[in-house]
Amino acid sequence: MQRTRFGDMACSIARTWDVIGEPWSPLILRNVYVGIRRFDQLQASLGISRKVLAERLRWLVEAEVLARREYASRPARYEYTLTQKGTELCDLLLFMVRWGDRWTAGEAGPPVLYRHHACGEISHVEPRCSACGGPMSATDVDVLPGPGAKTGPAPADEPEDQLSVGDSGPTSA
Amino acid sequence: MQRTRFGDMACSIARTWDVIGEPWSPLILRNVYVGIRRFDQLQASLGISRKVLAERLRWLVEAEVLARREYASRPARYEYTLTQKGTELCDLLLFMVRWGDRWTAGEAGPPVLYRHHACGEISHVEPRCSACGGPMSATDVDVLPGPGAKTGPAPADEPEDQLSVGDSGPTSA
Repeated sequence: MQRTRFGDMACSIARTWDVIGEPWSPLILRNVYVGIRRFDQLQASLGISRKVLAERLRWLVEAEVLARREYASRPARYEYTLTQKGTELCDLLLFMVRWGDRWTAGEAGPPVLYRHHACGEISHVEPRCSACGGPMSATDVDVLPGPGAKTGPAPADEPEDQLSVGDSGPTSA
Repeated sequence: MQRTRFGDMACSIARTWDVIGEPWSPLILRNVYVGIRRFDQLQASLGISRKVLAERLRWLVEAEVLARREYASRPARYEYTLTQKGTELCDLLLFMVRWGDRWTAGEAGPPVLYRHHACGEISHVEPRCSACGGPMSATDVDVLPGPGAKTGPAPADEPEDQLSVGDSGPTSA
């Protein structure tokens, strides 16, 4: 019931959450991303019940984030690969890593490092503007209603037409 | 119980999920980000119960993502602002928007547009490498164990020391 509701909101955040909002989904994605693709491997690696895993995999296949492939028959065995839609969702995971490394890793440091193929450096992703290439964070933008701002409780439904979010600085915790 | 478990994994994705894994949290963050900061406004805007909202706000304040401020007394009324940790979490929301706009908006188009202060263009975030500035997606990196790769089911616990994920292309859905 809640799933439908989030997906129906005119908000790309709510709709994205509708696909990966359940806690195991991003970890399943992460594992498929690093090559842990078979049902039994996924189950052993994540330590979840077969029932929950099967249910989540079914959902991710339905959402066209993963594709299912039979790699053995008698009995049938399946592995899962990322679709283009799923591959691009992994870019989102890289940003979760960036935030998590910065705010949750503590003194132990990042659990995983990422080496960029193009330059060979251990690095992390940074958000840049698709138009000018400059740094672009949530405090650097105005939020405006878009063409799809029709239904549901989205920012564009608020009284103000334009919300300049860069004016109010963050507060210290 | 599950909360503790995800937060204990040596994985920045799991740990980030531990903070914002519950479906309402990113939408609460989104609303505070666009200026809907008061409890009553948040409740009306999201259409959730006061109990659930209070519980989620308490968690986000405990996690130091939001800070609570009394803006009226007798009776006490509170508003919520983003901490630095929360502001940076909104950068992650921008990436959710990017993916959601691309894969869930359909023919109606994006519900919300973002205008970059620096260049004045309607644009979206793109992931770039912090070292060389070049495009950096999940298919452009090697995944290596980091200093914090100690506990829990993280990619680094897998047999292979290094996982080059760029070799296996995405599969069509």
